[in-house]
Amino acid sequence: MTETTVVSLQDIRDAAQRIAGVAHRTPVLRSRTLDALTGARVYLKAENQQRVGAFKFRGAYNAVSRLSAEQLSRGIAAYSSGNHAQAVALAARELGSSAVIVMPADTPAAKLDAVAGYGAEIITYDRYTGNREELGARLAAERGLALIPPYEHPDVIAGQGTAALELLEDVGALDALVVPVGGGGLIAGSATAAKGLQPGIRVIGVEPEAGDDTKRSLEAGERVRIPVPRTIADGQGAPIPGELTFSINRRLVDEIVLVSDDEIRAGLRFAVDRLKQVMEPSGASGLAALLAGRLRPVPARIGVIISGGNVGAARLASLLA
Amino acid sequence: MTETTVVSLQDIRDAAQRIAGVAHRTPVLRSRTLDALTGARVYLKAENQQRVGAFKFRGAYNAVSRLSAEQLSRGIAAYSSGNHAQAVALAARELGSSAVIVMPADTPAAKLDAVAGYGAEIITYDRYTGNREELGARLAAERGLALIPPYEHPDVIAGQGTAALELLEDVGALDALVVPVGGGGLIAGSATAAKGLQPGIRVIGVEPEAGDDTKRSLEAGERVRIPVPRTIADGQGAPIPGELTFSINRRLVDEIVLVSDDEIRAGLRFAVDRLKQVMEPSGASGLAALLAGRLRPVPARIGVIISGGNVGAARLASLLA
Repeated sequence: MTETTVVSLQDIRDAAQRIAGVAHRTPVLRSRTLDALTGARVYLKAENQQRVGAFKFRGAYNAVSRLSAEQLSRGIAAYSSGNHAQAVALAARELGSSAVIVMPADTPAAKLDAVAGYGAEIITYDRYTGNREELGARLAAERGLALIPPYEHPDVIAGQGTAALELLEDVGALDALVVPVGGGGLIAGSATAAKGLQPGIRVIGVEPEAGDDTKRSLEAGERVRIPVPRTIADGQGAPIPGELTFSINRRLVDEIVLVSDDEIRAGLRFAVDRLKQVMEPSGASGLAALLAGRLRPVPARIGVIISGGNVGAARLASLLA
Repeated sequence: MTETTVVSLQDIRDAAQRIAGVAHRTPVLRSRTLDALTGARVYLKAENQQRVGAFKFRGAYNAVSRLSAEQLSRGIAAYSSGNHAQAVALAARELGSSAVIVMPADTPAAKLDAVAGYGAEIITYDRYTGNREELGARLAAERGLALIPPYEHPDVIAGQGTAALELLEDVGALDALVVPVGGGGLIAGSATAAKGLQPGIRVIGVEPEAGDDTKRSLEAGERVRIPVPRTIADGQGAPIPGELTFSINRRLVDEIVLVSDDEIRAGLRFAVDRLKQVMEPSGASGLAALLAGRLRPVPARIGVIISGGNVGAARLASLLA
């Protein structure tokens, strides 16, 4: 390769070694009904069954495990309202370190409790007036903590890529890999793994209609910022692609397809009715794209990453009602 | 053994051979949180992931596959408002036969559609005035169909026992096996498998508080009829144990514990929040018993059969709300 790659297939293989026995090798789900509806063979990589309930643990653990003993003894900082918070908190605990997580003051109590339950310290901020990146950076500087960002980090991206690596190892050749896109870390890692192993594979990102920043950015050839999206897919609410993730995704992602919130709800219902699986809205967006017929022509063998399942019983009830 | 056994461990092994490659070998789920909450190592046999969404396919397929070519060509009859209906319909289709299913006229459309979707003919009756056993028997006689009852049949019981057989093969020695009890077929087969493989294992049945007919019957030493139970656990609504199943269960079941509907709801919520699994109320009753602290003293290694996941998105939403 003439171009410098920030994350390589070998980095993902190394990450897979680091997370082995700590992260779950999540199951690959099959559904005859889904195959019949799509006219394809569909393989669902169930990251809703991952530790902390989402793929985020892969990247967080890989990144934390690469810190020095001195860094681990000083501790880790992160900012997140969602799954990355729990992922960093658990990774820190597993590796004998400590974590401070910057979270919005209006984060649901269940999520705060989960992070606190992993032993992390929580610092809250007002999401309408505060800037979490600034808060995180200042906190890290003041306390000498290692900051683990949710996607703009090669070790985080390499860790996320292990989901696709495992899927391709388990099911063999695929024609397409469908991946939810938020900040772009999961698809950047997954595309690196997939194209490294199977150069002919088509990598298709899925964004909610209201949060199509990566689709617009790929079309424009540069990062495009959109208004903060209003969508039920809260894990896909980034208004602009990451700089690092976009530099990878513009090379490796073939296409972005969009799904509406109603299509995501239909995906959640299908998951409940037919798969007996709980997915969070972002986690179901790839499945939703398939069910909505967004892939044309339909690839023969399709892998889909179900990115997470942290929706909570009460919210799931309202989404299904 | 001096006593004649209607269903033996060998019958269950034979059933396992017949269903291999047709029924799913369902996964065994683990949860660190559940282990921490119970103080035990808990192994959940996920029959919610079985074909038709419940263990019932095991028994139905085993029974249908033992019919003669002539019987298969004439067809099969069954009566059920629930999972047995779908199980017999699919088993008939898989084995090149046809099925006529007697179902209550007020069965939810989704369930009628599922049965019709497997190619079965449906005959409806008024559940308040009709007698389904009579209707089924008359239908079978008139049309020369083989009647497959939901639990009062050695081949059905042997098929259900394969769930426990697989679980014990996969996880090794257990101190206790926890099994939901409706008509008693699942626990009769499971207890036969479990005690056959591990004579010291404790087999614990779970009934809803309102539907404690098997608990009362075991205490009385004879089958006791109770008023038709009012419970969310619709798969456990039998008002009296089966004659055949009770003859097995009185020998092999060590204890019955009861769970309230609220405890079952808590089990469903735990399954959604922590396991990311969809269970039907009956399917979660074993999990509910564990979470409610019904097992005293707590066995060190516990297997729990999650019997099914056919609840439907709308009903799940109302149960979680």
